[in-house]
Amino acid sequence: MASKAKSRKYVYSFGGGKADGDGTDRNLLGGKGANLAEMAGHPKLKLPVPPGFTLSTEVCTHYYANKRKYPQELKKQVDGAIRKVEKILGRKFGDPKNPLLFSVRSGARTSMPGMMETVLNIGLTSETIPGLIEQSGGNEAFAYDAYRRLITMYSDVVMEKAGGIEPKEGQGIRHQLEHLLEKKKAKVGAKSDTDLSAEDLKDLCEQYKKKVKQVLKKPFPDNAEEQIWGGISAVFISWNGKRAIAYRDIEGIPEEWGTAVNVQAMVFGNMGQDSATGVAFSRDPGNGAKIFYGEFLVNAQGEDVVAGIRTPAPINKESTGEQNKHMESLEKWDPKVYKELDAIQKRLEKHFRDMQDIEFTIENRRLFMLQCRNGKRNGPAAVKMAVDMVKERLIKGDEAVMRVTADQLDELLHPILDPVAEKKASMLTKGLPAGPGGAAGKIVFTSEQAIAAHEKGEKVILVREETNPEDVEGMRAAEAILTARGGMTSHAALVARGWGKCCIVGAGEIDVDVAGGKLKVGGKTLKKGAEISLNGTKGYVYEGSLDMISASEDNPTLVEFLKICDKIKRLKVRTNGDTPEDAKKARGFGAEGIGLFRTEHMFYGEHSAEPLFKLRKVIVAKDDKERAKALKELYPHIKKDVKATMQAMEGYPVTIRLLDPPLHEFIPTSTKGKKELAKATGVSLAELEKRSELLHEVNPMMGHRGVRLGVTFRDITETQVRAILEATAELLKKNKKVFPEIMIPVVCHPNELKDQYEVVKEVHKAVCKKHKVKKIPHLTGTMIEIPRAALQAAEIAEVAEFFSFGTNDLTQMTYGFSRDDIGGFMGDYLEKGILPNDPFQILDQDAVGELVKAGIERGRSTKPKLKIGICGEHGGEPSSVKFCHAIGMDYVSCSPYRVPIARLAAAQAVVEEKAAQPKKKAKKKAKKK
Amino acid sequence: MASKAKSRKYVYSFGGGKADGDGTDRNLLGGKGANLAEMAGHPKLKLPVPPGFTLSTEVCTHYYANKRKYPQELKKQVDGAIRKVEKILGRKFGDPKNPLLFSVRSGARTSMPGMMETVLNIGLTSETIPGLIEQSGGNEAFAYDAYRRLITMYSDVVMEKAGGIEPKEGQGIRHQLEHLLEKKKAKVGAKSDTDLSAEDLKDLCEQYKKKVKQVLKKPFPDNAEEQIWGGISAVFISWNGKRAIAYRDIEGIPEEWGTAVNVQAMVFGNMGQDSATGVAFSRDPGNGAKIFYGEFLVNAQGEDVVAGIRTPAPINKESTGEQNKHMESLEKWDPKVYKELDAIQKRLEKHFRDMQDIEFTIENRRLFMLQCRNGKRNGPAAVKMAVDMVKERLIKGDEAVMRVTADQLDELLHPILDPVAEKKASMLTKGLPAGPGGAAGKIVFTSEQAIAAHEKGEKVILVREETNPEDVEGMRAAEAILTARGGMTSHAALVARGWGKCCIVGAGEIDVDVAGGKLKVGGKTLKKGAEISLNGTKGYVYEGSLDMISASEDNPTLVEFLKICDKIKRLKVRTNGDTPEDAKKARGFGAEGIGLFRTEHMFYGEHSAEPLFKLRKVIVAKDDKERAKALKELYPHIKKDVKATMQAMEGYPVTIRLLDPPLHEFIPTSTKGKKELAKATGVSLAELEKRSELLHEVNPMMGHRGVRLGVTFRDITETQVRAILEATAELLKKNKKVFPEIMIPVVCHPNELKDQYEVVKEVHKAVCKKHKVKKIPHLTGTMIEIPRAALQAAEIAEVAEFFSFGTNDLTQMTYGFSRDDIGGFMGDYLEKGILPNDPFQILDQDAVGELVKAGIERGRSTKPKLKIGICGEHGGEPSSVKFCHAIGMDYVSCSPYRVPIARLAAAQAVVEEKAAQPKKKAKKKAKKK
Repeated sequence: MASKAKSRKYVYSFGGGKADGDGTDRNLLGGKGANLAEMAGHPKLKLPVPPGFTLSTEVCTHYYANKRKYPQELKKQVDGAIRKVEKILGRKFGDPKNPLLFSVRSGARTSMPGMMETVLNIGLTSETIPGLIEQSGGNEAFAYDAYRRLITMYSDVVMEKAGGIEPKEGQGIRHQLEHLLEKKKAKVGAKSDTDLSAEDLKDLCEQYKKKVKQVLKKPFPDNAEEQIWGGISAVFISWNGKRAIAYRDIEGIPEEWGTAVNVQAMVFGNMGQDSATGVAFSRDPGNGAKIFYGEFLVNAQGEDVVAGIRTPAPINKESTGEQNKHMESLEKWDPKVYKELDAIQKRLEKHFRDMQDIEFTIENRRLFMLQCRNGKRNGPAAVKMAVDMVKERLIKGDEAVMRVTADQLDELLHPILDPVAEKKASMLTKGLPAGPGGAAGKIVFTSEQAIAAHEKGEKVILVREETNPEDVEGMRAAEAILTARGGMTSHAALVARGWGKCCIVGAGEIDVDVAGGKLKVGGKTLKKGAEISLNGTKGYVYEGSLDMISASEDNPTLVEFLKICDKIKRLKVRTNGDTPEDAKKARGFGAEGIGLFRTEHMFYGEHSAEPLFKLRKVIVAKDDKERAKALKELYPHIKKDVKATMQAMEGYPVTIRLLDPPLHEFIPTSTKGKKELAKATGVSLAELEKRSELLHEVNPMMGHRGVRLGVTFRDITETQVRAILEATAELLKKNKKVFPEIMIPVVCHPNELKDQYEVVKEVHKAVCKKHKVKKIPHLTGTMIEIPRAALQAAEIAEVAEFFSFGTNDLTQMTYGFSRDDIGGFMGDYLEKGILPNDPFQILDQDAVGELVKAGIERGRSTKPKLKIGICGEHGGEPSSVKFCHAIGMDYVSCSPYRVPIARLAAAQAVVEEKAAQPKKKAKKKAKKK
Repeated sequence: MASKAKSRKYVYSFGGGKADGDGTDRNLLGGKGANLAEMAGHPKLKLPVPPGFTLSTEVCTHYYANKRKYPQELKKQVDGAIRKVEKILGRKFGDPKNPLLFSVRSGARTSMPGMMETVLNIGLTSETIPGLIEQSGGNEAFAYDAYRRLITMYSDVVMEKAGGIEPKEGQGIRHQLEHLLEKKKAKVGAKSDTDLSAEDLKDLCEQYKKKVKQVLKKPFPDNAEEQIWGGISAVFISWNGKRAIAYRDIEGIPEEWGTAVNVQAMVFGNMGQDSATGVAFSRDPGNGAKIFYGEFLVNAQGEDVVAGIRTPAPINKESTGEQNKHMESLEKWDPKVYKELDAIQKRLEKHFRDMQDIEFTIENRRLFMLQCRNGKRNGPAAVKMAVDMVKERLIKGDEAVMRVTADQLDELLHPILDPVAEKKASMLTKGLPAGPGGAAGKIVFTSEQAIAAHEKGEKVILVREETNPEDVEGMRAAEAILTARGGMTSHAALVARGWGKCCIVGAGEIDVDVAGGKLKVGGKTLKKGAEISLNGTKGYVYEGSLDMISASEDNPTLVEFLKICDKIKRLKVRTNGDTPEDAKKARGFGAEGIGLFRTEHMFYGEHSAEPLFKLRKVIVAKDDKERAKALKELYPHIKKDVKATMQAMEGYPVTIRLLDPPLHEFIPTSTKGKKELAKATGVSLAELEKRSELLHEVNPMMGHRGVRLGVTFRDITETQVRAILEATAELLKKNKKVFPEIMIPVVCHPNELKDQYEVVKEVHKAVCKKHKVKKIPHLTGTMIEIPRAALQAAEIAEVAEFFSFGTNDLTQMTYGFSRDDIGGFMGDYLEKGILPNDPFQILDQDAVGELVKAGIERGRSTKPKLKIGICGEHGGEPSSVKFCHAIGMDYVSCSPYRVPIARLAAAQAVVEEKAAQPKKKAKKKAKKK
């Protein structure tokens, strides 16, 4: 080990047009180090980067693996690297005449902002201060200000934190030194730090050093060599600091990665009126426009731009706005430097093939590049840049789809609260973010109130304890829904997401008093009509009506971006939709068919009164004959509904699920409703109540529903299938291209399917005869949503012509979680980390995923080309969509507003798969050797 | 094929002290044919069997594989076999002087009683009748009666049925011939067939032949050769008759097996006063006593004994009873023949090593053996014979345990309705047989009524729409429970089975009117106090109070038999029990520990009022502090309960499941109960109702229960664990050998278990400290009852110290069946054959079994010696117990009354496993060759 280690390279120099490493060395040099090397050394860049060197992540690993000792050869390599920097700059580290100063910064593979330490101005000692004053043209104040900063940072970071000293709250050395600064400023009447004179600062430095010795029992080291090693160690130690460990845990960054340390020659933007510092982006990160966008401050250091103490000036006309239109731009302040910077940003973007976030410093009219990295951006910007860069041939489609996250795409699909207004608003309470986007309106407490207000043109928020199917009309009329109970897959959440409507559920602090027409929350009482605003993406509820920013769903850039996704993806994306409106909306979002049409939804929606009443007659029928009569009345409604939706989805398949919920869900709960029904069916109210009571179930989720209804009431299946096939026959006659897929839900045994297939076959024969055709094209398949169905998929596939995984119910039964009832414990489960996330939102790839995989493998062991999709809520959740791709599904289906997200995830899945494959091959090769 | 087939033997002769086959040839010769060959040909038997021959099952197979054609060589082989019989008997088939007659009977591998056809007296023609008269010493009436029977059977079986003629209801040829017989009898004034004269019968035969020709358009064949081939074909054709196919489907008999055909020389027990026929058993099939038991009739044919037209006489003193004590026994009628028969039955039993059911005929004082087979027997007889035969060294223990079925054993464990009384009683209605045994008593409709009547010493039957936990006291007080709703695993069924109590559920025709104190069923109204009787083994309800036959659980023979089982079985058998009484009862039945002690049961039972009230205070506690106080009050109840039960089960492990049901199950539903609770907890009724409402769940089965309660209310777990460990510590101090196993229910993720383990560890530490001991022996494990837990068993086993499969819940979730709600469709599902049986009764080895197997394999992949058991209802169901054995569980646990059944099944599992193994080896060998 030791002999091999002797020849190992630990220190990588950069600067003077050369670099030991390059941009591909992220693992070894960290992100910052690798990019510095790339900027400094790449033949096409060779940018003016202050020279320096990087101690690799291997030093960090070695340090922790060897009881916090450095490799033997490190000292020599660092000394050699310092000599190189001295040579490039003609200054010397620790030299009294012409001293060289360094910054010491961390730099892990992945950016861990603010989690590790930085020390600037290293090398300033009582000996070298005069030399710095000399270099700055006699600017004493500048030199002592730099010294003051060094003492502050060094005593805090190196002596206290890295020394393992844990002071009491508010007693840290940095705090105590700042207290001295404030006292001094008060004493001399200085408003800002820059008002202090050289003398003031010099005195302050003396005070600082005394305080450091007094508090930390050690003098501030007056030696450049000691300072630099103290700084380096402090950075390595900070890798295992509390903050860094916590951050790594959250982000899943392995401890073994370690951090690199970047040591770089100091340049000063604060050396006077010919110096400046700035931050810029190669495109506008707010909207993606292809302009050079940035800000700068004359006579300032980088942290001043970020801190926002002074308003920065725009770098050019394109970056000029209301707040800084009176200020001189960099373009005007120094056209030459600006031109140089502009050329550099263009080169950098072309080089890194992505929008760059760059930091620069101008020391005495000379430009230095301090950092460059891929810039952060919001949703609209991410989409626009991805599309533009493909057009510019800067990147390929594969790369473009990886440049946009699902969350970024989602930003484009919903109106949101104005972030500026939101920051200032007063938050009332929080709930679960069940439907993304924002909404503002007046509080109403009942469905009727919502409809009435909506008809008057008022915007309302429907606030309920929890919602049920009878609230659906009111939910449709409201801008948003807010409930005090329920989880992410409660009724309110499901319905709202289906409509892309803003919704917050489970806001448990709210006490709803429907009768009193008011709600109480956090000591406040809000009456009906009071205005509130909801941020459904975060689950925040605000008092008052906040401004909104509208959605951009018809954004042509979005359309273009999704076309890029479509070219790449293999999975088809369908929608869950129950109406022609849903179908049209989803087509607009790019849906390639309907994956889940719920027949029962005609009994919930806006025009449900008549069909629902007829269904109720079916349900309470006292015998087969009465039921047959009622079904005959219901039949035209089903046919009409199915026909209109199929027509709206022409050219694509439509999967129609037969009646799924237990019948008692449709029985009226109000006495008025019961009386009406009793009258219409000619039975007494008592008799009606008895019949309803008989339908009551203890656990309706696992009761008499789905195919079980079809088996016991064959005529209910028969009526639905006839409606579907008649509608199809009629549309085919009009040359409409329609493809119905009849889906039988809640199957757990192949015999159930065989039983229902007989009905489908019989009806098909009869309808063909009636329409004088040989065949009406259709598929008959099943949902796989019961664990047993997944396990018995081989047997079920002998009958089924397609599978559609219902992962909502499959998750319920695999976990034994009723999604209506998880409210009681899910909060605790997530908080205590018992579950990594709510399995109804993100598919559990371990167990539910195992069942889905088994279902696919077994199903295809019987029918190799079996068509397989998913129609649970997971079909629109990115990680779940990728899983569906990986395990070989043919399509996913999700609510219309999730269709674009699913298209993106499906494309990313392909790219990620490609990226993983060569690695696999490489591994295989390695093994062979 | 053809050349090979030429040399194949299809016909196997027997008789004259020789036989081509033997008793091992069941597959080839069928059961009857093989035993005839054995009796006729085995050197140690050589019994007087009428000679004959068997056409093998291969003929049947060939017949159906070759468009209903026989093998070429069959005719020749049959002719040869006939010649052999002719030689032995000195008669000739078709010979006018001394004709030989044959019977033709079916005989499959397994007995298919009444499913296939028989033709007797084949060979009687107008030519051979005089010869038969001659043989019978001039008995013309006998000969024409035989002829009449032949025409009837032949025209029905061969000409009509095998000819594929399907007459209208009541128009069959047999029916028409019998009509002629009745007419003739009326005309001559004959009361019975035997009153007809030879002349009458002769005339009748002529009428028969005319009718046959008229109806079937073919003459009855007057040719012996034609008759015998017609008979043989009819039997083969009946193998694929409707009745036979239906029977095969039910019993799972493969069509490929085919049937054999037995052709045997006729002997006549009806040839006069020196002839007779009888049936006998080598031991008493009613109680197993080792006596020769049987009946016979002089001048009769076998069917007369079975038909019960004449009362048969006993064969000996031991077989004499009230009904036949005046009749002459065979022993007296012909001591010589009796002695011969007695010697034969002894030889047969020794030879076949089981109780034999034999048929014999005496023709002119000469004894013939027509059939022998292992005799059917009831439960008590089966157990006694098994034990006796082991003592007699006739069989080994392995064989003994295979001689008793679970149903037979069950007969010994419950009092039953007197079968004689039951036959005469009038059935009111039917339900599902939820708790075996019988009961009689007065109807009551409420728990209170049941308790009051019970206290007065009255026997009552509790009749409810359905039961709930509040009915438990009344259920305990009643003799039996009858419900109008609910399935085999409804509350009533589970509780009743746990107590071994008679119970019928889901008797849907009953209309219960609790308020009116009456029930209506089938047009009758029964008031409170009316007497009814229940057969809980079959689900029959009778009017009136029927006589009972008491159970024989302390039967020493049963104890001996179960000891034989215990020596063989590998599985341990534990009991599900919640009280010291349960524990004692189960120890009596041989339980080796408790596999499921439900802490919540202390809140249901007889003395539950106080603990339940305290639990309710825990539940409605408004905050942690209030709950802590309430838990402190509840604690001594839990400890007392656990301690008493562990003490009663001393020497064996006791698995204690922590609180499992959702809390709202315990909230009072009556206003009175609510008011009391409100008063005790010092809150308003409205507030209490609000708190209860908050606990309401849509699907409580999958709600906030089991470990989910433990995670959210850590102190509920803590209190229970402390009670268990304190109780253990106190018992250990008294040198009691107790082994608690703490079981955490409803786990779906290893993190839940980790969370609860921390609590157990902490409490353990504290209790050890208090009692000044280092360790309190205990195991902490989990139920595997959620599909996810089975799939994640490897991860869960990293924490769990044992697994107990809760297959009730696992079945619920694997099927998506709420066992409380299957009533709506399970009836249809079983009737339509969609499910082979109720998966809550018989473990579904396909899917639920796959999960259980996976759970075991994965669990043991982490901990190879992981202790694994089952505590669902399936733990007492024989086929499920065998499955548990096969997949390597350590124990099964079931209700006390099922413990003996489980012990038997566990022993049978070992024997069946051994029996399967050599076969496997043989197969392997065969493959190697």
